[in-house]
Amino acid sequence: MESAQADRAKPVAEEADGLWFNWRAAPGVWADGVPADSDALWVESGQLRWVGRQADLVAPPGLARHDAQGAWLTPGLVDCHTHLVYGGLRANEFALRLAGASYEDVARAGGGIVASVRATRAASEDELLASASTRLQSLLAEGLCAIEIKSGYGLSLEHERKQLRVARRLGDRHGLTVRSTFLGAHALPPEYAGRSGDYIDLVCQEMLPALAAEGLVDAVDVFCERIAFSLAETEQVFQAAQALGLPVKLHAEQLSDMGGAALAARYGALSCDHIEHLSADGIAAMRAAGTVAVLLPGAYYSLRDTHLPPIEALRAAGVPMAVSTDHNPGTSPALSLLLMLNMACTLFRLTVPEALAGITQHAARALGLQDTHGLIGPGRPANLVFWPVQDLAELAYWVGQRAQPTVVRQGRITQRA
Amino acid sequence: MESAQADRAKPVAEEADGLWFNWRAAPGVWADGVPADSDALWVESGQLRWVGRQADLVAPPGLARHDAQGAWLTPGLVDCHTHLVYGGLRANEFALRLAGASYEDVARAGGGIVASVRATRAASEDELLASASTRLQSLLAEGLCAIEIKSGYGLSLEHERKQLRVARRLGDRHGLTVRSTFLGAHALPPEYAGRSGDYIDLVCQEMLPALAAEGLVDAVDVFCERIAFSLAETEQVFQAAQALGLPVKLHAEQLSDMGGAALAARYGALSCDHIEHLSADGIAAMRAAGTVAVLLPGAYYSLRDTHLPPIEALRAAGVPMAVSTDHNPGTSPALSLLLMLNMACTLFRLTVPEALAGITQHAARALGLQDTHGLIGPGRPANLVFWPVQDLAELAYWVGQRAQPTVVRQGRITQRA
Ligand SMILES: [Zn+2]
Ligand SMILES: [Zn+2]
Repeated sequence: MESAQADRAKPVAEEADGLWFNWRAAPGVWADGVPADSDALWVESGQLRWVGRQADLVAPPGLARHDAQGAWLTPGLVDCHTHLVYGGLRANEFALRLAGASYEDVARAGGGIVASVRATRAASEDELLASASTRLQSLLAEGLCAIEIKSGYGLSLEHERKQLRVARRLGDRHGLTVRSTFLGAHALPPEYAGRSGDYIDLVCQEMLPALAAEGLVDAVDVFCERIAFSLAETEQVFQAAQALGLPVKLHAEQLSDMGGAALAARYGALSCDHIEHLSADGIAAMRAAGTVAVLLPGAYYSLRDTHLPPIEALRAAGVPMAVSTDHNPGTSPALSLLLMLNMACTLFRLTVPEALAGITQHAARALGLQDTHGLIGPGRPANLVFWPVQDLAELAYWVGQRAQPTVVRQGRITQRA
Repeated sequence: MESAQADRAKPVAEEADGLWFNWRAAPGVWADGVPADSDALWVESGQLRWVGRQADLVAPPGLARHDAQGAWLTPGLVDCHTHLVYGGLRANEFALRLAGASYEDVARAGGGIVASVRATRAASEDELLASASTRLQSLLAEGLCAIEIKSGYGLSLEHERKQLRVARRLGDRHGLTVRSTFLGAHALPPEYAGRSGDYIDLVCQEMLPALAAEGLVDAVDVFCERIAFSLAETEQVFQAAQALGLPVKLHAEQLSDMGGAALAARYGALSCDHIEHLSADGIAAMRAAGTVAVLLPGAYYSLRDTHLPPIEALRAAGVPMAVSTDHNPGTSPALSLLLMLNMACTLFRLTVPEALAGITQHAARALGLQDTHGLIGPGRPANLVFWPVQDLAELAYWVGQRAQPTVVRQGRITQRA
């Protein structure tokens, strides 16, 4: 899609109530029971009241009419794996590495994940809100309607709480659905060096219960990897989550096959993410548990990884595949979900319909939001994107497009093409 | 860079006349003679009248003052290799390939370069102008001030003329510098199948002289490759260009080492482009001739190429390296020069300063525009970009950023951050 309108866009926030017509949609966007040849929908009080064939609707007199001008319709986009809230800026680290600095040099210059932990701890809640809001704008402009945001740069009760509170506030401020994930087990904080067990105890016995009690935790995640936490430590966190009735997800098999996916599946995980080194056993376990595979091509690209996730095997097993930015300051400073769509196709060879499902219905499932997000049907919140393109495949085809769709988010028109 | 302002931007086109202050610049942006610690510049009647230390300027009373609010300043960006003007849309071909269609299937469904030739021939000049304008908007929003546009989808006098006329009109319409390159020897048109020599004769004896006489040709290019034109055919075109006093460039060594770079250097080529398979001899010849190496990471990425251009050797030889989108509908539908900056760093390991020079001063040199574009100095047209970022490295660091700098193009403020 080529947006001639980028510079002319005005922020709008009118109610989207009324009948939307003159659009096209691919068959895969409909919730159960919606006719595949639907060509109109009725928004009322922020919800989809009706979706179907315009000819079948007996509309009340005076219903507002919105002409979509032949646009392609998709559900609001869902970014199901991000680390959007953090302090500091690591652009300089990126430049230093390219200039030949070693990891040690970078660490000595204050870089690496420790830099983000330090800057996140030092930042106020309002500062974190401001910087994350700026980054979020790029994603919102592409029609994002729901996002997952992880903690994991605070690594103490106080600072993890601060990150999760900012995640909640981003949802209120920008009028989109935010799912907050507690990722206290992201990295070992410097003050626990050599005491991994003690830190995991703290995560399980103090941090998680307190944050859950404050209503700040929608799911629990762990970075299970040789450079992070072990399988046993991962299970300890999952048990703590289970005891609190919280769903789990996992950063699994990114750099090696740790058996994390099979473990996560045993705990009924919503998703396993990264999974470049996922085994056949892991795939079978995920399939049986209904766990979503979250593909993160931005990290694969930025790390110049060459080990592809087992797309063919996931496809053959029928494991749902989601696609996400993995936005984070170190390994995926990605600010465009549409670019991830292109990368999922170009680098991972997803088909265009698979990639589109990956940023809508399967991404919603990875967040437990499948009943409200990622598909279009009556009774759901009105999260809709009208794309001014000739061919829906344009969403994945252009490289670095500056998309400017019409966006209906939570029943309000927040942007016009 | 994270642009919170994307949705609030308004098109503007005021004169930029006056004193611009309160900005920062990297040392590499200055034309000869400008102090490296310059911190102010004076625009008058579309030109830079003065650049230097604000303390040294005796400004006339009443000079308008523009506060750049601490932004980073770069020269206007230059995209030095594009095929921006074409008919049709090949998003469907992208989708078909991912769905498993072979090249033959795609060809049977009307895809491939022949599809673009057919659609370009079928389109009117105004239709080509409209579609290219839409694509150009994405690039302009990032501060593009000069662009090279090649013909090569017409492949007959009438249709190559049409493409080149559209290139000229794009410059007038959008107020930017356009260099038009005749690439009649891009592919063999279907009606010349098996008669490559006849087609090259037509290119050299009829098409090029006629189009040059109409003032439509700033440079001449050839696609020298086993799947395109031979070294001998390339030289024939170069001789025709030389006879007309036109500079040459070359699509060289993309898929194999044809020796094209050395040939091009013998003809004093402005640039050799792609050059993944460039040899040491080619590098030495380019160095001696002052030929620019144009790197096209978008094509490398889209084709999932794994053969890197010889960056280390080019760097060691001191060959200037430019970076460009190679925008084209088949192998690089790239709409962001900043994303190419990120790809040049991430995939090709250019340093950030090298990559920035690649889309400014070296790109200008690849177009013969080094005296007017790509650097900042007095007497040059006012093409300036003010980036609202903390760190200049952000231009290359973010992946898929939606940049919204303040742009001064040909002395007018065309966009505000
Ligand atoms: Zn992650
Ligand atoms: Zn090209």
